[in-house]
Amino acid sequence: MALARVARSGLRRSGGSFGGNRTEDVFCEGVSPCQCSMPSLENVREYSNLSYFSSTKNVNHMRFWSRGIRVMPHYHSPAAEMVAEVSDSEYDEPRYPGLEATKPGEKPRVVVLGTGWAACRFLKGLDTKIYDAVCVSPRNHMVFTPLLASTCVGTLEFRSVAEPVSRIQSALATSPNSYFYLASCIDIDTNKHEVYCETVSNGGLPSEPYQFKVAYDKLVIAAGAEPLTFGIKGVYENAFFLREVNHAQEIRKKLLLNLMLSENPGISEEEKKRLLHCVVIGGGPTGVEFSGELSDFIMRDVRERYTHVKDYIQVTLIEANEILSSFDVGLRQYATKHLTKSGVHLMRGVVKEVHPKKIVLNDGTDVPYGLLVWSTGVGPSNFVKSLNLPKSPGGRIGVDEWLRVPSVEDVFALGDCAGFLEQTGKPVLPALAQVAEREGKYLAELFNKKIGKKNGGKALSAKDISLGEPFVYKHLGSMASVGRYKALVDLRQSKDAKGLSHAGFVSWLIWRSAYLTRVVSWRNRFYVAVNWATTLVFGRDNSRIG
Amino acid sequence: MALARVARSGLRRSGGSFGGNRTEDVFCEGVSPCQCSMPSLENVREYSNLSYFSSTKNVNHMRFWSRGIRVMPHYHSPAAEMVAEVSDSEYDEPRYPGLEATKPGEKPRVVVLGTGWAACRFLKGLDTKIYDAVCVSPRNHMVFTPLLASTCVGTLEFRSVAEPVSRIQSALATSPNSYFYLASCIDIDTNKHEVYCETVSNGGLPSEPYQFKVAYDKLVIAAGAEPLTFGIKGVYENAFFLREVNHAQEIRKKLLLNLMLSENPGISEEEKKRLLHCVVIGGGPTGVEFSGELSDFIMRDVRERYTHVKDYIQVTLIEANEILSSFDVGLRQYATKHLTKSGVHLMRGVVKEVHPKKIVLNDGTDVPYGLLVWSTGVGPSNFVKSLNLPKSPGGRIGVDEWLRVPSVEDVFALGDCAGFLEQTGKPVLPALAQVAEREGKYLAELFNKKIGKKNGGKALSAKDISLGEPFVYKHLGSMASVGRYKALVDLRQSKDAKGLSHAGFVSWLIWRSAYLTRVVSWRNRFYVAVNWATTLVFGRDNSRIG
Repeated sequence: MALARVARSGLRRSGGSFGGNRTEDVFCEGVSPCQCSMPSLENVREYSNLSYFSSTKNVNHMRFWSRGIRVMPHYHSPAAEMVAEVSDSEYDEPRYPGLEATKPGEKPRVVVLGTGWAACRFLKGLDTKIYDAVCVSPRNHMVFTPLLASTCVGTLEFRSVAEPVSRIQSALATSPNSYFYLASCIDIDTNKHEVYCETVSNGGLPSEPYQFKVAYDKLVIAAGAEPLTFGIKGVYENAFFLREVNHAQEIRKKLLLNLMLSENPGISEEEKKRLLHCVVIGGGPTGVEFSGELSDFIMRDVRERYTHVKDYIQVTLIEANEILSSFDVGLRQYATKHLTKSGVHLMRGVVKEVHPKKIVLNDGTDVPYGLLVWSTGVGPSNFVKSLNLPKSPGGRIGVDEWLRVPSVEDVFALGDCAGFLEQTGKPVLPALAQVAEREGKYLAELFNKKIGKKNGGKALSAKDISLGEPFVYKHLGSMASVGRYKALVDLRQSKDAKGLSHAGFVSWLIWRSAYLTRVVSWRNRFYVAVNWATTLVFGRDNSRIG
Repeated sequence: MALARVARSGLRRSGGSFGGNRTEDVFCEGVSPCQCSMPSLENVREYSNLSYFSSTKNVNHMRFWSRGIRVMPHYHSPAAEMVAEVSDSEYDEPRYPGLEATKPGEKPRVVVLGTGWAACRFLKGLDTKIYDAVCVSPRNHMVFTPLLASTCVGTLEFRSVAEPVSRIQSALATSPNSYFYLASCIDIDTNKHEVYCETVSNGGLPSEPYQFKVAYDKLVIAAGAEPLTFGIKGVYENAFFLREVNHAQEIRKKLLLNLMLSENPGISEEEKKRLLHCVVIGGGPTGVEFSGELSDFIMRDVRERYTHVKDYIQVTLIEANEILSSFDVGLRQYATKHLTKSGVHLMRGVVKEVHPKKIVLNDGTDVPYGLLVWSTGVGPSNFVKSLNLPKSPGGRIGVDEWLRVPSVEDVFALGDCAGFLEQTGKPVLPALAQVAEREGKYLAELFNKKIGKKNGGKALSAKDISLGEPFVYKHLGSMASVGRYKALVDLRQSKDAKGLSHAGFVSWLIWRSAYLTRVVSWRNRFYVAVNWATTLVFGRDNSRIG
């Protein structure tokens, strides 16, 4: 098997998951028909006779692994098209530059895909005396996601919630055979023990992305998940997600732009209301925290600094069921009451369509908006869908109790992209930072103390090593701030268990201190504290830069 | 006279200054010829018979007043095209929404164009008990320009050098008849005492910019200048300027991207060198400070955090004449020696052409680069060029000793966009922050103590008021940091005068404390100090966000 790639600027392969003979959905995007010529597509042949475990595949979706780039049509840049071609083994020679397999005597190489909670916690814990680490991600930093909502309104600086991966694992920057590659993984060959990567493009500028390969001894897939949109039309085009620092930056820019535009003369009352209507879809912790931060911003800063338009701004949180459904019923009621008191309009509804200036609900209601934030949870990414690996219920990469992908050797998966296989009898864990972090920590110890100590680090040499205790997740509880120095803390281990739960100012203090102690570096710990203090003293910053 | 505007998405009027019968340079940009249909252009008639002081004009250049937006083709969004049409007075009825002229009994309205040093210092000093203020600018904050170079490499946070204008003059946010409008001024009618504005577009997203007008009693033009490119091909497309916070953000992103891309496998030695070759054009204070910051970043941070590629990175400063030519000869020599010691390659040369990956010098030398920063000074913007106002030598708006534009009533100009008229016998002052700031301070006092006290605030009522002392500029000296805790301080009043000058660590301390005390708000003063301290302790941040 080999990958034939046809570099043709302006042509992209698009579509959903690509798991078999799907040559019919190859089409051109973003170019007029006259510019499309696709003789190469004749080379695309079915590979329906692939065995389950062969894994060379074509993944070059339009929205492929878009963690670092907001998925909007205007960001798409021309890129090379890749076409899968099944051939006999005569093309099997490596045609990529890259890192070849480690030689005997060299340290085993662990390749980590991703820089989220799971990947970073794993990298932090990995013993680089035993292993060389190579991290591949389109983002060079970890995002301290629980505090991301605060950055949208200027409570925190963007940089305070971003931790460069080289500060988390310094070997990536300094060790001779460890690397961080700013690239997206586009393919995995589990037989050859190789991953194929494509460099990120230059943020909109014409660029020449190119591919390279990295051979691994052990592969850790922690590539995360993608926002769920339930196939609703217009979400990708018009809504903002809140998963990356640049999402927060864009939300902030849009919010400040709308505040300023609505002050301009000649804007009708109706248009002012629309511009300043901030709609949040999804009543999970992210949606609630963002609504709370927004209402804080409005209560304190908009009232002082945008007095001309302060009466037009409104936050609406739309949720199909109940907000914070995973929390204790008392806490839920507290949150509902508190948000309502803070001016957040809670609304039951299911979104049918999203238009540039309004959303349409299932019951036909039109909701005009100026800013739309979408946080309805996450699901498997196109990259994960495209991998020919066993899947857990829900479509994540299926793992056993030791976070191994059982049917292939030397591949592990963790974080939001992984879930227990049905045969383990364990439920798929929720897509939470604490799950990902705990898994990363567990796997690093497995690598250091079990596999590494018993010389199982090299490819195909860990088969018979006993891995000891399996991974067991113990939920420590949930927290969510609801604005105005109030938060919820739910210390029950599960939804139906009994235990402590608390809401109010003390919870807010717990929330702040808990996060402050968990921010990864001292630098950011210091900055978060300084940011919070200055917000208290000076109010939030409202310069619209960029 | 009237403005006929033809909204046609995808069509833009482009070109240089538009000062007469230039219909021949109307062309389409960014669209294929088949999409261009321009029947409206038949309406474009010459207006060579306009009197000198009539001032309705057409300014919708592609690069028009681009202070807030980097001038690169991929940022252009379709916008309405404006075509100047000379007609008789039957179309004179106002067709804009906006602020009408103030009525008797109302406070006089001062309209300020711009949010740079001059505009902000003026706004800060203006007595809002006497005047209502309206500020029009595409940027809602002032940039503390002398510290901008430090933000590119992470020594300072971006937000530490940006000061929201509503924090400088709170009346803009809170006073019932004072406003800040996020918009570009596109035209001035000095006879009708009106300015015409267009809202900023949505940063790349499809948007509907629309126009409005603001009637003024007094107009203060402080719209700044534009980078000089001397008509050299490829500068706008490939080089970065360093005048706005988002310029610094883009430079930082590009620098970190190149550092990371060069680590990827399969990059040739030559390509690594190119990617990591940072070229700075122009040896003025900005160019020198940026080079110094870059070399600091390389010396301390790249060596620690990008050890795989640290030997490939190189900074070259290209200057046609001598670096820091306005400084004392001893200081110049010190700077040259210090920069060379820090690894900055100083090169004499004149740029002929700029290509995406190399620049070509006049002597035919090719200089490959990965990052190109252009800082060869500033000149009149297209907006200033397009105004039918008297001009100073060099093409700025000509003013008398009281910063009035003499031939029209109630119009003042200051900062980089203004210069003394030839008949004043005074030289045009350099485009420096301290000049702009001093002018802003002077004009605010003139408005408060002379014009305001004598009831001259309203339109056409200040003609016979004696304005007292004219503006006299006294140079306080120049400062420039050259990296590694070293700076130059030149306290001579002019290039040929005698006086104190000093270079070294003490100067660097003076440089830092001088800037720290001059940063406008306590909040930013605090943040700059915190940023400097953390950089000292933790090194520079290198997360590439956005």
